[in-house]
Amino acid sequence: MTETAPTAAILIIGNEILSGRTQDTNTQWIADKLTHRGVRLLEVRVIPDNKDIIIKTVKALQGMVTYVFTTGGIGPTHDDITAESIAEASGKKLVLDPVARQMLLDHYGSEQELTEARLKMAQIPEGAKLIKNPVSGAPGFIVENIYVMAGVPRIMQAMLDDVLSVMKAGPAIISNTVSCSLGESVIAKQLEQIQLRYSNVEIGSYPHYRAGTLGLNLVLRSVDVGDLDKATQEVIALIKGLGGEPGAISRQA
Amino acid sequence: MTETAPTAAILIIGNEILSGRTQDTNTQWIADKLTHRGVRLLEVRVIPDNKDIIIKTVKALQGMVTYVFTTGGIGPTHDDITAESIAEASGKKLVLDPVARQMLLDHYGSEQELTEARLKMAQIPEGAKLIKNPVSGAPGFIVENIYVMAGVPRIMQAMLDDVLSVMKAGPAIISNTVSCSLGESVIAKQLEQIQLRYSNVEIGSYPHYRAGTLGLNLVLRSVDVGDLDKATQEVIALIKGLGGEPGAISRQA
Repeated sequence: MTETAPTAAILIIGNEILSGRTQDTNTQWIADKLTHRGVRLLEVRVIPDNKDIIIKTVKALQGMVTYVFTTGGIGPTHDDITAESIAEASGKKLVLDPVARQMLLDHYGSEQELTEARLKMAQIPEGAKLIKNPVSGAPGFIVENIYVMAGVPRIMQAMLDDVLSVMKAGPAIISNTVSCSLGESVIAKQLEQIQLRYSNVEIGSYPHYRAGTLGLNLVLRSVDVGDLDKATQEVIALIKGLGGEPGAISRQA
Repeated sequence: MTETAPTAAILIIGNEILSGRTQDTNTQWIADKLTHRGVRLLEVRVIPDNKDIIIKTVKALQGMVTYVFTTGGIGPTHDDITAESIAEASGKKLVLDPVARQMLLDHYGSEQELTEARLKMAQIPEGAKLIKNPVSGAPGFIVENIYVMAGVPRIMQAMLDDVLSVMKAGPAIISNTVSCSLGESVIAKQLEQIQLRYSNVEIGSYPHYRAGTLGLNLVLRSVDVGDLDKATQEVIALIKGLGGEPGAISRQA
């Protein structure tokens, strides 16, 4: 990884994740998109719908990374407090944004449809840039380095497409995955030797159970394709040397 | 929620989650179990396999909650650095634990199977209490209020069963979910009125898309079953009053 790669953090805002009611899938979606653009995701936090906690957490993450992505809490109901929290965190007023209001009007079709509850979704921190929502109208927004998106996956995904297209990319991180059925402890020592020889390749070892059988995925990641492929060949040779049968290289770029 | 309910944080340690390669499912599993035991999950963090970051984060979470649960990084390979990081965070030495060694011996069956790589999994912070691993032998451990578990879901789940059975429980949090197809903005204002009348019931509003259709789940949670059911009946009456058709109450205890 180069020193200049942009970095990111994700802040998942929602009691429904912390209660175990809802499986968060936004993290993996965003993480995968960031990796493909060469943005390094450094941390994810899941926090409740609580104003003081949102403010404190977003401030902590803001200084750590290039981009903070938040999901959740920008709808019309009483538990949607992300916009007011971000406004307060960044010292801005929450104002009725005329462009956001127009987006809602375009979506709902008439002035009488713009109820008090819906207009809450046009209350945006002053001066924020809007993020388009082609699914349900109400926009996300960008304040400083904070990208505020919806929690509903389909809406979040559309918003992310809107912002990624104009975001600074880094050198792409390529990964090679090689599977085998060797135990981790069989391969550990020599795998570490390969890791020590390739400091710019990150080698991860991930055991899993499928149908009661232990399997192992060895994942190599780097921005340097030449070293990545050399290290991968060494891993394959190691697996064969230990009597294992390496699977075909699965590559993600 | 009562003041005395125990609280928890989860620390997911693993580059594979941050790269988007792996969908974390441990959070929801643990969150669900904690909710059923009346333990309030206050925060989740996902961080990389990096010793300084693990130490800093675990120290931050330790002071915030009753229990910190970590997953990941306790295997035999070079990227498994959780045990040494937790030892350093708690100011303890990492030592070959004789009971952990015996657990590995029982699992692998003979002394010659206890290779250097496998014995790494018996290196435990001095004085830690072990967590049984009926799946693959190598134990988790407890230091102070930190519960260190494996990342592989099947192993983590078995370890969690071992620790939950002796953990302090709080008053159970019961939830009622009522679905409808009203828009959030239609119901928002009057739903807030119900929320304001029931301060000990937490009411969440969760829109979703299925097969292109917008749906809405209203989730009410409380330790007070009487108020929970009263508030739920008010929500059902509200849905009907607005011309919606409430689904049957789905209750989780």
